[in-house]
Amino acid sequence: MTPLYVALIHHPVRARDGSIVTTAVTNLDVHDIARSARTYGLAGYFVVTPIEAQRRLVHRILEHWTTGAGARRTPERTEALALCHVVHDLQAAIGAIREQTGRPPRLWATSARRTEGVPRLTLEEARRGPDSGPTLLLFGTGHGLVLEAIDGIDAVLPPIRGSADYNHLSVRAAVAILLDRLVGEHGSR
Amino acid sequence: MTPLYVALIHHPVRARDGSIVTTAVTNLDVHDIARSARTYGLAGYFVVTPIEAQRRLVHRILEHWTTGAGARRTPERTEALALCHVVHDLQAAIGAIREQTGRPPRLWATSARRTEGVPRLTLEEARRGPDSGPTLLLFGTGHGLVLEAIDGIDAVLPPIRGSADYNHLSVRAAVAILLDRLVGEHGSR
Repeated sequence: MTPLYVALIHHPVRARDGSIVTTAVTNLDVHDIARSARTYGLAGYFVVTPIEAQRRLVHRILEHWTTGAGARRTPERTEALALCHVVHDLQAAIGAIREQTGRPPRLWATSARRTEGVPRLTLEEARRGPDSGPTLLLFGTGHGLVLEAIDGIDAVLPPIRGSADYNHLSVRAAVAILLDRLVGEHGSR
Repeated sequence: MTPLYVALIHHPVRARDGSIVTTAVTNLDVHDIARSARTYGLAGYFVVTPIEAQRRLVHRILEHWTTGAGARRTPERTEALALCHVVHDLQAAIGAIREQTGRPPRLWATSARRTEGVPRLTLEEARRGPDSGPTLLLFGTGHGLVLEAIDGIDAVLPPIRGSADYNHLSVRAAVAILLDRLVGEHGSR
């Protein structure tokens, strides 16, 4: 299942009350998910936000760590953040992947909800995965992606469940766990 | 393998240059690890720092989310942060667990290093786990725990490896992945 990409989407996502909002970018989302992406051999990580001032902020963070003072002090952080790109919408991420790989990615989201007409994959099926072509994993901030507002989702994976009846992981933790389940070296368990 | 606890240790840990330091508490470490702990049914989460001003800071964070304005707005965060306690050293965490369970916990750390005289467990052995008694998982901030400075470690688990040759996960991601590997519902994979 290569190459694999992840997108962290700040719009359209749900707020606590169910309304559709745009969330603010969190600095540690940029760092943590880039480090997890690098750890699991991903080909890229897209931070997706329609707000230009937020994209400029992410650019400044990335510059600091990839070419600025942070790069000299912490080279392993540079390696992770070099995977990160900031784009204004999902179409721009898809375009960038098409440019890199020659093909548009299949789009996979995780959700507990059923979405009409979109097939569901178990994690085992997703892990065996398609044999070629890029895949882009979509994660929503806030209270989750508005799936029905996104065209062209190819499959929905089940959400991460722990061992308790509680489903409020941070998106940073959810990405880390999903990558481990999909591409981790399970032989070492 | 119940009850299970996690400790996030801010001293003694290593800095980039190998020296032994005390790191500052990160707000999102308090939140993310509490949410992961709740998701995986842990019995408690200890933030361990010898610095009194930092403990006061964590107390204020916990108050806001367990009895203050945050609790009214976000009850599921209250549920997670109610698991979190802040203590000045590992002995205080061990004492609190002994009080709750009647027994001192076994101490498990994760490390790539060999530590003389401390048995190593594979994740599979750890997952099958001991059949009773509390277990406390130790995680270091910064560049990792100074294992040889901690008395009474019962076993060392292998560090989380992804699929790439890169080992710089955030501690928030490492805790999430280890809990998933140890107590996640692997049947749903």
